[in-house]
Order: sequence, then C-alpha cells, then structure tokens
Amino acid sequence: MNNIKNYIDDNKDRFLEELFELLRIPSISADPKHKNDIEKAAELLKVHFEKIGMENIEICETPGYPVVYADKIIDKKLPTVLIYGHYDVQPADPIELWDSEPFEPIIKKTEKHPKGAIFARGACDDKGQMFMHVKALEAMLKNDALPCNVKIIVEGEEEVGSENLGWFVERNLDRLSNDVILISDTSMISNEVPSITTGLRGLSYVEVEVTGPSHDLHSGVYGGAVANPINVLSKMIASLQDEDKRITIPGFYDKVKEYSEEERKVMGEAPFDMEAYKKSIGINAVEGEKGYSTLERASIRPTLDVNGIWGGYIGEGAKTVLPSKANAKISMRLVPNQNWEEISEMFKNHFESIAPDSVKVKVNIHHGGEGYVTPTDSIEYEAASKAMEESFGKKPIPQHSGGSIPIVALFEKELKSKTILMGFGLDSDAIHSPNEHYGVFNFFKGIETIPLYFKHFTELKKQEK
Amino acid sequence: MNNIKNYIDDNKDRFLEELFELLRIPSISADPKHKNDIEKAAELLKVHFEKIGMENIEICETPGYPVVYADKIIDKKLPTVLIYGHYDVQPADPIELWDSEPFEPIIKKTEKHPKGAIFARGACDDKGQMFMHVKALEAMLKNDALPCNVKIIVEGEEEVGSENLGWFVERNLDRLSNDVILISDTSMISNEVPSITTGLRGLSYVEVEVTGPSHDLHSGVYGGAVANPINVLSKMIASLQDEDKRITIPGFYDKVKEYSEEERKVMGEAPFDMEAYKKSIGINAVEGEKGYSTLERASIRPTLDVNGIWGGYIGEGAKTVLPSKANAKISMRLVPNQNWEEISEMFKNHFESIAPDSVKVKVNIHHGGEGYVTPTDSIEYEAASKAMEESFGKKPIPQHSGGSIPIVALFEKELKSKTILMGFGLDSDAIHSPNEHYGVFNFFKGIETIPLYFKHFTELKKQEK
Repeated sequence: MNNIKNYIDDNKDRFLEELFELLRIPSISADPKHKNDIEKAAELLKVHFEKIGMENIEICETPGYPVVYADKIIDKKLPTVLIYGHYDVQPADPIELWDSEPFEPIIKKTEKHPKGAIFARGACDDKGQMFMHVKALEAMLKNDALPCNVKIIVEGEEEVGSENLGWFVERNLDRLSNDVILISDTSMISNEVPSITTGLRGLSYVEVEVTGPSHDLHSGVYGGAVANPINVLSKMIASLQDEDKRITIPGFYDKVKEYSEEERKVMGEAPFDMEAYKKSIGINAVEGEKGYSTLERASIRPTLDVNGIWGGYIGEGAKTVLPSKANAKISMRLVPNQNWEEISEMFKNHFESIAPDSVKVKVNIHHGGEGYVTPTDSIEYEAASKAMEESFGKKPIPQHSGGSIPIVALFEKELKSKTILMGFGLDSDAIHSPNEHYGVFNFFKGIETIPLYFKHFTELKKQEK
Repeated sequence: MNNIKNYIDDNKDRFLEELFELLRIPSISADPKHKNDIEKAAELLKVHFEKIGMENIEICETPGYPVVYADKIIDKKLPTVLIYGHYDVQPADPIELWDSEPFEPIIKKTEKHPKGAIFARGACDDKGQMFMHVKALEAMLKNDALPCNVKIIVEGEEEVGSENLGWFVERNLDRLSNDVILISDTSMISNEVPSITTGLRGLSYVEVEVTGPSHDLHSGVYGGAVANPINVLSKMIASLQDEDKRITIPGFYDKVKEYSEEERKVMGEAPFDMEAYKKSIGINAVEGEKGYSTLERASIRPTLDVNGIWGGYIGEGAKTVLPSKANAKISMRLVPNQNWEEISEMFKNHFESIAPDSVKVKVNIHHGGEGYVTPTDSIEYEAASKAMEESFGKKPIPQHSGGSIPIVALFEKELKSKTILMGFGLDSDAIHSPNEHYGVFNFFKGIETIPLYFKHFTELKKQEK
C-alpha cells in the first residue's frame, strides 16, 4: 500500500483543486432554478471517471435528476464493491449567516480542525466525502492496485429524498449487483476517536397548511371572534409532544425497537462531553424525551421537529393582520422497524383529526425512508473496522447515528447486500447549516482508508471461501 | 344645504380622480424604503388644502413622519371642529393575492357595493375616508357654507402606532384646541344600517424571538436531543390561551370592563347574520372566548392574535434543519380600562417566565394604545346621529368596534375633547388585506354627511348656551 500512500501525498494539491471545482457548482436539488448546475455537476463527474480510467461510464437519466454510473470489472470471480454517493447539496439559506461564500470554497483553521477545513456547501455532505472515493479509485487504478471489482453510482436527489433512486435501482439490478455497498456520508465521533455508523434513523417529511378565513382579515375587526390559523397551528404543533417530550400520535411508538439495558450500556460507553456539546451549539440546557440520554435521543429514539414555519406578516414593522393561512414543514426521524409510509399516514390522520372546525387542514407527505442497522459481526463491517484501525492507529467504535440515508434500506431490499457507512465527517462540520466545512485531514484520511477497505474486504472474502 | 349637495354632484368625477391620484402613492409607513412616498403624499395634501381655501397650512415635521395641518377660523366665538385622518397605509403584502395592482385604483362592482367600489390599498383605510373631509370642506368653502371653525390634521404614522403624534399634540395644544374631534376611520354595519362607533379597543403589539442553538443544525444529527425553537415557540404561543380561549397571562383580565346583562342585551340587538358572516370570510365555524357572542368577542372582549410567524426553512422543497431561531409578531386588542403599557409588560414578564431553560427569549414591545368609549348622551354624538339620519334617512345605531385608533384616548387626555368616530366603511371592505376597497356610494355619502355634522354641531352648541 506504500505506492498508494505516496501517490496520494504527491497529488494532494491537485486533489483539493479538483474538489474545489466541484464545490463551486451550486447543485441544489431542492431548488428547480439550479437544474443546470445539477447537470454541470454530473458532467464533471463523468469527466473525472474518464480521466482516472473507469469504464462503462454513463450519465443515466431518471424521471428526476440523473445518476452517474461507472465501473471497473477486473475479474468476475473477484468480489465487487459498490460505492454510493451524491453530488447534490442542501440550499445555502440563510445565506447571510455564512462567513464566506457558500459556493466559493476556502480553507480556514477551526478548533476541531487545526490543520484546516474546507468551507463550502457540500464540502462534507457529500461532495467532499464522495470525491474521496473518486480519488481513492484513482490512486488504486494508477498504481495497478485495485484488488477487486468496483462499481460507483452518484445521485443528484439525495437532499430531496432520493425520489428516483428506487426507480433506477429496480431497472438496473444486474448492473448494480455487488457484494457490499460502501458509503461515506456520515460522521465519526472525532478525529481522535474514529467510529463507524451501524444504525441510521428513517425519515418522514410532511408539509402542513392550516387555513382559517378565505383572505387576510383585520385583527381588530375580526380578532377574538374568528380562529387565527397561526394560533391554531401553534396549538396543533404543541399538542404533538407531551410534557415528557413523547410524541402523541396514536400508534407512533408501536414498532419502535427497544434496546436492552445491556445494549444501552454499551452504547453509553462512547465518549461524550456534555459541556463541550452544549458549548459547541451555544445552548444552556439540552431537552428531549424523558428517560433517555442525549446520545440515545439523537440516535435510537424517534423525533418530531418543525423544520420551517411561516404565516401572516413577516416583514419589517407591524401589521395587524389575522392571516388566512399558516404553514409548517415537519419531519420525523424514525428508528428501525418504523415504516415511514405508515408513520406518514398516521401523522396525516392524526393531524387532520385534531384540527378544530374553525379551520381547514391540508397535509402533504413529502418524502421519507426507512431506518437501518448494520450487523457488526459481518465480513463487511470487519473490513471497515480493520481499514480504519490501520489508517487511524485505533480501532473504530460502532455507533448509531441520528441522521437518515433512506436509500440504505432500499439497497438491502433490492440488491440483497449490506451497506457499510464509513464516514469521515464530524458532527460539528455544520452540514445543512451555514459555514458547512470538512477537515482537510479528514478528506485525505478518507482517501487513504478506502483502498485499505478494498484490500481487507477482498482478503476476508477469500478467507471465507 | 342644497348648494352643497349640487356642488358635490357636479364634481363627482373630479373628486374620484383626485382620490385616485392620492391612492397611487404607496405611502407605506411600516417600510422605510417608502419614505419618499410618505413625503409625496404629505405634499399632495398640502396642495389640496391650498386649492380649497384652507389657511395656515403647514407640513409639520416630527421625529418621524410629518403631520399636515390646516385650518379655517371664521369667527373665534363659533365652535371649532378638529378633523383627524391619516395618509399612510398598510403594506400591500401578500401582493400575489390582489386581483388588481394595490396602487393602481380601479372601480369594480361587488355584492356589497352594487354601485361599484374603489379597489386600492388605502381606499378605505384611511385615504378614501380622510379625503371625504377634504372634499366636504371644499364644498362648504366654495359655497360659503362653513358654519363654524375647522382645523384638520393628517398624520403619516397611524399604521405603525402613531408613534410621534403624542409628541406633536403636546407641542401644539393651543393650535389644536377644539370643541370636538371628528374622525372617519371606522365602519358602519351596512349601507342600509348606518351606525356610529362608540367604543374602540386598545392595542399592545409585541415581537418575540426564541433562540435555541447558536446556528442552524442538522435535524438528523441533533433532532430529539436539542430543543427546536419552532416547537418551543409553538408551545409557548399555544399556552397563552386556555381551552375556553381565555388568555392565560396572569392579571390580564383584572381591569377588563365587564358589561351588565342589560348593556349586553342592547348591544345584542344590532343586526347580525351568522351565516352571512361566515360566508363572507369563508369559514365553517366561528371560534372565540367561551360565554360571549361573536359581536362581543370582536368588540368588548380583549384578544391575543399572532399576526406573523417565521422560522427555519420556508422555501420550496424540504430542508432537514433544526433552526437556530423562531420569531412571531403578536398583538393584543384591549378593552376600556386595560392600560396598554401595563399589559405589554405583563406579556413580556409572562412570556419570559414560561421559556424553558433550553432556549433564550427576547420580547420587544412595538407600540400600543388605549381603548375608548364615546358617551351617546352628548351634543358631540347627537350631531353625528342627526347628520347620518338626515343623509341616510335612518337613525344610526351606536356600536362598539373591535379595532383600535390609539390616538383617540390621547386626544381626550391632551385636548380635553370628545372624539366622534363617524366612519363610512364596511367590515367587508378588506382593509389591511388584499383587495382593499371602498364603496363609491360610501365615499360620496360621507362627503354629503360631513357638512351636515358641521351644521348640527354648530346648532346644538348654540342651543346649549
């Protein structure tokens, strides 16, 4: 592996430059006006795959944004690793809170990243982490060191729920056949405490609209006599959680996987510094479901968060309006065994049922996905553990993450293979937030670790036979 | 009075044209970028006062927007009527709900206005109603028929709480001395059922901000473990009213004027058609404080309405953000005896006290004003009743309004005179809403009634002596 290590070291500046070029494209999938940027990002990936020597490269059209595919089959008898990533990013709002331009990457030092971090939307989620695989493949291919077959798919709709990835996978079962799926779109505990994500939460994302009067009214003339949709929506949202911060939707917890005391004890051994946690996000007190620790609340327990709310007059100054409508975007993080479609329906039925007669309510189910758990006693996991131990000099800790990658459950169902979530970000990297960044150390550590994964996975598969 | 009536009839088209010119100026006081338009509107009024023969005309500077003053003193021994109005208007948002341009007036027929209504922001509130006085003055002056002295002040900050009118009044006590104040900035029951507003609600307008984490977070990584300021704000707002829709702020009802069964019975005799009311604003059910009728809830009872709310991601599509902040604009309509400053402080203290440790709360008191009641057994009221009876052919009904004109209480305190609220709008005129309009019938009926008020008030004052 020394050749690979040297090759990476010799090309560091170019690797960063190439990532920067990709980060400069505002490929925001949630906003239709960035359609061209989405296409530009897909084209650029295609060019990269050509340059590094991948084969069967194709920008595969879907009913939505395209999936970029490439592979390198060196021997059909050898195992195949399928890499997944996404080239789309979250919107950059609120823009005014960024210290630098979201689509003009720059490197700055931070407390967590003393060697510098790349600041840009998508730096960590997921362009930076996805691009590590492109550069790791380059290092293996240019040094004749690819030990098995590889396929890679990079999609453009992850941040809007991977709506058409299922469509694509179903139509490409043979082309995507593999022995393991490798994804870098998660985080580690810290640069000193490497970890591998073995659990993910599912997601149900809905949008609600509460309509009172058919048009905005004067709050003096009508106030007190006519239901105000903002007051009503606030009350409805408030009622979705009880005093113990348990979600009140009937049946919501029925299928929630409960962990044994022993399992919770093991999870509780992950290092966690409450004061540092609170300080890093500027809060005085944490808050969450009674009876669970902060780490548990953020990983093995389901949630209900309002992601956006709006209604009435929100400009400068005052307007005494009793508005016609109030709206909210609400998402629920789900845990293994909760079915997102079932939960979304439950939400819809419940929300409609609690609306008073004085308003009309619409619930629009946006998108969602299932949770996932990776078994730690598998070859797939062991290879990742060995690779990270070799590159970090420390055995990684398996841990549940609170985030969602809805397509992982889909992959298991359609492609019958396990997914390894070997991510190199940190929770403090501000993904989905202003000033998203990704450590330069993490970027290169990832590029170095991925070939080790290929090596260990191939060896373990050989031993298995 | 026949001369006056004929003069009005002969000049109808020009009166409308002149009003349209005023309505085309977007003099929105809440939005600083319309400062020039405010000044334009004040200038235009000055020109009108000059043209019709008013004297001592002055655009009086204040720490905010100017007050336009004019008078015509024909004999110091005669009584003096002070007219008040405002030339500023509410913002036009949400613009997309207007069927025509808010600042390009057009006349269209409506169900309530079969003879046509003027559609424009400010058509009714208050440019249209204020301009009736300018034209009534013109009709009296041009026909040598002004029976007493008149002073008029038109301000530019009514829609943002008349912040500097108190400042102006205190400095101009002599100049503004009068025997009665006449205002047209309220509504009647209908064109067939004239009424005079004898009660007004007060107002307290506040803005609140709830801050959770110092920056937006990923709702997957932190959701469930960190307080979401939108969920918290919703819960805080919901808690401000109980199941009976009573406001829960301690002390809030302590000074509320309670009406006797007899008084409530008289008020309840005003015509009210519940089905027509619900239909006119497109609702299936009314909602309000238990134990009170719709008319009572909208006039003699205090309220708490959220006028605007915002937080998190409110763009197209989905963003799984746990936002840093959530904000709301909240106003309370107050009834006689409630002091707005005391209530605002009560709100602030209560709202801060119910905030959980997991967030920080800021309450900013915007502005406010006291409620008001006009005695119906006074010369001031009797003159209005006679004037309307003469022009409408029907005795007007005294009624409490739910709206607020904070300066009425101020006038009584500083100028020691009563205010008559002789408004000609309808509740269905959509003031403060998209498609605000004002009946052409109402505009000319107002111009016709105002000189009758001057006549009856002068006569009644003579008889009094």
